[in-house]
Amino acid sequence: MKRLILLGATGSIGTQCIDVVNEHSTEFEIIAMACGSNINKLEEIMTMYPSCNYFSVKSEDDATLLSKKYSDKTFFYGMDGVSKLLDLDGDVVVNALVGFIGLEPSLKTIKRHMVLALANKESLVTGGELVKKALKEHGGTMYPIDSEHSAIFQCLQGNEKSQVHKLIISASGGSFRDKSREELVSVSVEDALNHPNWSMGKRITIDSATMMNKGFEVIEAFYLFDIDFDHIDVIINKESIIHSMVEYKDKSVIAQLGTADMRIPIQYALTYPKRLSLEQTPSLDLCKIGSLNFMEMNYERYPLLKLAFEAGKRGGNSGAILNAADEVAVDFFINKKISFLEIEDLIFKAYKEIEFISSPTFDDIKRTDQMTREYLIRSLED
Amino acid sequence: MKRLILLGATGSIGTQCIDVVNEHSTEFEIIAMACGSNINKLEEIMTMYPSCNYFSVKSEDDATLLSKKYSDKTFFYGMDGVSKLLDLDGDVVVNALVGFIGLEPSLKTIKRHMVLALANKESLVTGGELVKKALKEHGGTMYPIDSEHSAIFQCLQGNEKSQVHKLIISASGGSFRDKSREELVSVSVEDALNHPNWSMGKRITIDSATMMNKGFEVIEAFYLFDIDFDHIDVIINKESIIHSMVEYKDKSVIAQLGTADMRIPIQYALTYPKRLSLEQTPSLDLCKIGSLNFMEMNYERYPLLKLAFEAGKRGGNSGAILNAADEVAVDFFINKKISFLEIEDLIFKAYKEIEFISSPTFDDIKRTDQMTREYLIRSLED
Repeated sequence: MKRLILLGATGSIGTQCIDVVNEHSTEFEIIAMACGSNINKLEEIMTMYPSCNYFSVKSEDDATLLSKKYSDKTFFYGMDGVSKLLDLDGDVVVNALVGFIGLEPSLKTIKRHMVLALANKESLVTGGELVKKALKEHGGTMYPIDSEHSAIFQCLQGNEKSQVHKLIISASGGSFRDKSREELVSVSVEDALNHPNWSMGKRITIDSATMMNKGFEVIEAFYLFDIDFDHIDVIINKESIIHSMVEYKDKSVIAQLGTADMRIPIQYALTYPKRLSLEQTPSLDLCKIGSLNFMEMNYERYPLLKLAFEAGKRGGNSGAILNAADEVAVDFFINKKISFLEIEDLIFKAYKEIEFISSPTFDDIKRTDQMTREYLIRSLED
Repeated sequence: MKRLILLGATGSIGTQCIDVVNEHSTEFEIIAMACGSNINKLEEIMTMYPSCNYFSVKSEDDATLLSKKYSDKTFFYGMDGVSKLLDLDGDVVVNALVGFIGLEPSLKTIKRHMVLALANKESLVTGGELVKKALKEHGGTMYPIDSEHSAIFQCLQGNEKSQVHKLIISASGGSFRDKSREELVSVSVEDALNHPNWSMGKRITIDSATMMNKGFEVIEAFYLFDIDFDHIDVIINKESIIHSMVEYKDKSVIAQLGTADMRIPIQYALTYPKRLSLEQTPSLDLCKIGSLNFMEMNYERYPLLKLAFEAGKRGGNSGAILNAADEVAVDFFINKKISFLEIEDLIFKAYKEIEFISSPTFDDIKRTDQMTREYLIRSLED
């Protein structure tokens, strides 16, 4: 029985992780869960999964209320609460937190010798070097949950790393894939949130439209699979059925395909190197889908993707700058303070202006994150 | 250095195998080659690859002539000559013979404890049980060269067999995939030989059009991967870029993609579990291809494929009947003795009429092959 600590329990990955655990209740148990402010959802989960006893929520007030209501359970709060959950004796930590706050728990998971099942992309985007160093130092293990990275991870099985020629990351193209840059000038938040293939959180939907998300995935892939940026390609697969591919030196290409069901990569991260059945998920029906369409990535059309390659190569705190700038800029856009194309402008501006640190400590990364946010907020006020 | 014995050296697989060996001359050497009657091609190969010293050709006359011309080399002839090559001290036998004659060398390869790299599909179609028994008895190893089976073999790496849900074999659909059965009544040999995706030998091109070839591949897959027929699917991928797929129990699908270059599967069978570079082959460019199109297999449209499933399930000498009947019927069609749809009629007739043997010996299989051929020749004369 694997003992799981689930960070980000009320989000999309979190609830699907609980589905997976429920389908295989003799294989996994969740001993602790962390979430933010969605207390209704948390209580729903507690009813659905009553055996979990340790929780952490965002605010002290929520923790106090919950402690009174559920006196047999333990509630912590804040990032300190998350850290307390990680002091428990778990086997695997599913880190499905959203944003930069995911980095510290990732590092602690590794230090505590628990397996890191990673859905929090910011851990690697902002602190890739630190995570890698920690993995090396503590002999740690990390498995990807992101569908693209799980795909690559699956395609790498049974092959030696030295025989990989390139990783080919799939992109859907986002909400505006059929629009020219000229047409992007006047797009609205509502347009941007209308993703062609699925429904996700707001930020990641906007990040899909700007391709910043794909840029982050490129940086993640660099850290996860130890491959240089010149051997990472991005192509558009409109249907998002081929989740990603690996081309080997013999020109053989291995691809992982599937429906958009995130339970597949979540479960694989938990069962690796085995696979368990996943009855709730329907089989992929390629004949019903009919055709898979591919388009070359146009890096001029998506300058943030190009910037991510550049930032990835520069390393240091570059990813932390991009991530913080993107979080703030997307928030501005969603709140209609800036236009769609100004997201790019702000991120480029931050990348140029925020001081580069080549070998940042965790505190440097944290400071970079803070400085970048403040800088962009000031920029907007000017 | 792996020592190769190459059976079927002058054919398409044979010459591409020599290409692979030439690209990696520090990894492989060919110590012996067998071919049929294409002596010009053999002499060309001997010039290109001068270090090989043992040969077997089809006819005694050719062997005698060659022995005189190349006195430093040894020439055998006939199936006895092939058998003599297999007495040499090799590591891997690439069996790229065409037709039923490939079975006996496959069995001897296994008995001699050499690795069997198998391109001769008739070995498994006609003698699958015997090959499996020999592999078990002698602790032998067999790797597939057929592109579909190599694809499946690659997609299975790093996964346990018990976790496979189904194998999905790709079919191009053949020359007549866009024709209805009504339209097939009057098609010509020339039409049938015009394969949409590539140029191959005549028999296999016709076998693609009737889908008999795909049926044989289903039977091969059954023996190669030890999976029951109800877990083997066939779908049409018009572009033949996805060579085949494996769906696992968690609904994750792993696919192998590539250009039509057979050097990829040939090389993989030789280097497995490693991969070596293959410089001569261009990378797959999905963006240039643009789209991959899939269609459900219509088993009523392709009755021979359906029959292959039935024959595979019946087992025994059923595959030997199908194969012999197909060889003869296709030959009749190519020589304009019968119409395209009569290929099916003759194969069904043979399958119905030739005595079924549930646990045939090698001699039973040989006799089945002979009887089926004679039966169809008589049928045509009637």
